[in-house]
Amino acid sequence: MFESAELGHKISKAAWKREMPALREGLLDAQLDLQQSGKFPVIILVAGVDCAGKGATVNLLSEWMDPRHIETHALRDLTDEELERPAMYRYWRVLPPRGKIGIFIGTWYSAPLVDNVYGTIKNAELDQQLERILRFEKMLCEEGALVLKFWLHLSRDEQKKRLKLLEKDPKTRWRVTDTDWQHYKLYNKFRKVSERMLRTTSTPESPWIVVEGTDPRYRYLTIAKSLLGALRQRLDAPEAGCHTEPIPPIMPTIDNLLLLRTLDLSKKIKKSDYEDQLERYQGKLNLLTRHDDFKKLSVVVVFEGNDAAGKGGAIRRIVQALDARQYRVIPVAAPSEEERAQPCLWRFWRSIPSKRRFAIYDRSWYGRVLVERVEGYCERADWMRAYGEINDFEEQLVRNHTVVVKFWLSISQEEQLRRFKQREKIGFKRFKITDDDWRNRDKWSEYEVAVCDMIDRTSTEIAPWTLVEANDKYFARIKVLKTLCERIEEALKK
Amino acid sequence: MFESAELGHKISKAAWKREMPALREGLLDAQLDLQQSGKFPVIILVAGVDCAGKGATVNLLSEWMDPRHIETHALRDLTDEELERPAMYRYWRVLPPRGKIGIFIGTWYSAPLVDNVYGTIKNAELDQQLERILRFEKMLCEEGALVLKFWLHLSRDEQKKRLKLLEKDPKTRWRVTDTDWQHYKLYNKFRKVSERMLRTTSTPESPWIVVEGTDPRYRYLTIAKSLLGALRQRLDAPEAGCHTEPIPPIMPTIDNLLLLRTLDLSKKIKKSDYEDQLERYQGKLNLLTRHDDFKKLSVVVVFEGNDAAGKGGAIRRIVQALDARQYRVIPVAAPSEEERAQPCLWRFWRSIPSKRRFAIYDRSWYGRVLVERVEGYCERADWMRAYGEINDFEEQLVRNHTVVVKFWLSISQEEQLRRFKQREKIGFKRFKITDDDWRNRDKWSEYEVAVCDMIDRTSTEIAPWTLVEANDKYFARIKVLKTLCERIEEALKK
Repeated sequence: MFESAELGHKISKAAWKREMPALREGLLDAQLDLQQSGKFPVIILVAGVDCAGKGATVNLLSEWMDPRHIETHALRDLTDEELERPAMYRYWRVLPPRGKIGIFIGTWYSAPLVDNVYGTIKNAELDQQLERILRFEKMLCEEGALVLKFWLHLSRDEQKKRLKLLEKDPKTRWRVTDTDWQHYKLYNKFRKVSERMLRTTSTPESPWIVVEGTDPRYRYLTIAKSLLGALRQRLDAPEAGCHTEPIPPIMPTIDNLLLLRTLDLSKKIKKSDYEDQLERYQGKLNLLTRHDDFKKLSVVVVFEGNDAAGKGGAIRRIVQALDARQYRVIPVAAPSEEERAQPCLWRFWRSIPSKRRFAIYDRSWYGRVLVERVEGYCERADWMRAYGEINDFEEQLVRNHTVVVKFWLSISQEEQLRRFKQREKIGFKRFKITDDDWRNRDKWSEYEVAVCDMIDRTSTEIAPWTLVEANDKYFARIKVLKTLCERIEEALKK
Repeated sequence: MFESAELGHKISKAAWKREMPALREGLLDAQLDLQQSGKFPVIILVAGVDCAGKGATVNLLSEWMDPRHIETHALRDLTDEELERPAMYRYWRVLPPRGKIGIFIGTWYSAPLVDNVYGTIKNAELDQQLERILRFEKMLCEEGALVLKFWLHLSRDEQKKRLKLLEKDPKTRWRVTDTDWQHYKLYNKFRKVSERMLRTTSTPESPWIVVEGTDPRYRYLTIAKSLLGALRQRLDAPEAGCHTEPIPPIMPTIDNLLLLRTLDLSKKIKKSDYEDQLERYQGKLNLLTRHDDFKKLSVVVVFEGNDAAGKGGAIRRIVQALDARQYRVIPVAAPSEEERAQPCLWRFWRSIPSKRRFAIYDRSWYGRVLVERVEGYCERADWMRAYGEINDFEEQLVRNHTVVVKFWLSISQEEQLRRFKQREKIGFKRFKITDDDWRNRDKWSEYEVAVCDMIDRTSTEIAPWTLVEANDKYFARIKVLKTLCERIEEALKK
């Protein structure tokens, strides 16, 4: 894999001078097209061997292009705000929006590589982590991002030479740390693991580009040309990011036996029992949040359901048991302008809770496989891949000790009609029924199919869906509270 | 000031039951109006004596209203991301946008109060801090926010009773800390300083509302009614937030002698000198950023200037001397949807740099007193108050050891025309001249007056403007680099 990058590639000064001006101009031009069209974001990873010129390369790119539309992110120590959230949070929060370029030095590849070389994680765990990275990058590409991954390589001798050279000069001595020499001693190990890493994470959409780091001119020119080529190709493509592969349709159940229809919506609870149990479970929930180990957890609660199924009421019964400083309720409506310029999960990463806190979503990331699917707001290919992306997202939350609890509140068509009419009669403007509500109602069976698909594909052992029979509000609220308590209790036991 | 809050106010259970339902309904209704109209944000401060029921009150408000449009923020330990920025950063980042309610427990008043009681800061410093708070709150009000400040009061005996009661119950014992008892011992001191604080920070736009905390029903009812009253008044006002006071016009200079016109735009530098000095000052800048003490600083550079004055070119010459990981260039155009729902400085607070980093603004918060003033995008009253708000903002940056360097790049009308024509001739699309550019040109003299007013009002001893004669690009770039170096050097010496 690194053979070609040890051949001693070189570019003469004359060739450099000949090529550079047009290249610079081309890059600046492409960047302007990118920015004006706002077609897609560009994510550039610059990884590789220590001292292979990562910093210098990035500086050159920033210098050649318009620094106003390019941002460089170096892996620094995690801030405490980042430490309390899943590892990918730090990258999500700085992803470039459409039209901009983000350069990452020291990337999501660094930790798995170093951890494996130093034996902190075994190969199996390394592969797991790489698999997660792959899925993340796949998501970026499918959201339209141009992802370019450069690996700057040096041979062992060359690396040693560099380190010595830097150490000799008093002006650059500070750059050589003990860690650098330690890594150097492990060169062969690093090389082996890097090779494995590059092999398993080179994909057709975002292959690794290995560049020999010895000669700066060769390195600069190779990277600049790759970048320009990739930019131009995407910018000049007739319709960037369109899906060419046909996506096979999901097979509908042939016997019309849908999970949702198996719910016994007649389940009820007496008012007096409701009041008793409400107090009991609210008390329990409150106690659980004061548990010593609760400080290691955070809680994400997702509410989805038919219109007028009582999501708001159920949420109120939860927050009554909590301290107002401890939760945030996030109503999910149409994304804002800044959110629309990012991958669709970006806006949810913005609000994931730190330790000891609840984030309660009134509608959620499942909009993509529900309303967006049914109303045709996105392509079939987009909502099809959303199932996997959502599972990945929730897995990251769970690995970060977030309890993910998801509720589908289900009412019958008759009950919904009754509630709509009641609301119209009461006439309180806060209960106004919108045209959307009636339109959604007309598509009842399409929603039914979408919900069943959603549950089949995203109810997982780590983040299961709880179907809530909600024709009776009392029954629904108790089931929600009880389930939430059980799930938190379970997590505390671990 | 606290006399009325020690009378033993009480509300009977019967009165409570009678009033509560309508009050709840009214609040919910007002909140919905607020959210649907998106007219203004509501900022509620809940401060006061320990154990006076701050938490319980906030919980009740959240319970009564729609938790999806209300967010509670408690003063927790500063995160390291907050520690590196001015003290108000933590509040700016969570300000509620228009249409939403933000509740703050433990507010910007806590630190000055406690610090003064414990003798960390003297009265003079306390007054300074309160003055800054006043200006901040004034800005919020003038940006349209409804700011409500509640102070929950307890007499000394009552506080002692509360603490004892909490300690007796094993379920609440954890809530009483040593700090609480320590504060109790200092009750009289706290009372005295609080009184001073409340007195000096009660303004007509946002007066303190002192509430006796002893009886929960009295406390809840008083606060809920005040909130509802204030909400309704603002919501039902014919035109919320309009300026009724006439703002006196700024007197134009009567002899037509403008600061800008005194610049000697013929200043020039030879190409060979330029190249020497460029290298020299870029090298110097780079060295300065490696200085040991530079880790205590951050740098904000502001570029304003005539169209085509060469801001972009000057910025490039700066970043060439920096590591790409160390700076961010922020091009300032029209605000995004999320930014428009916030006070006008909010979007700049988003990007202020952490320690050791540069934020370089290509156009800036001065847009309000330049383009917005001249084009009439905002009221006279708005841009008039912007001068003071901007000075406050920059003062906060400087107190946080941020070097604030501001450049006005000035070219003559003839030179601008030459550059416009040249750009049109070259025809590179990246140099396209827009209609805006020609329009701005027609208003040359209006801009000239606005620029002079801006410099007169915002060139301060802590953040002075540097006027740059920019007809000659070489001269301008060197002056920019040299000034930047000098300002950083100066800060390092302190």
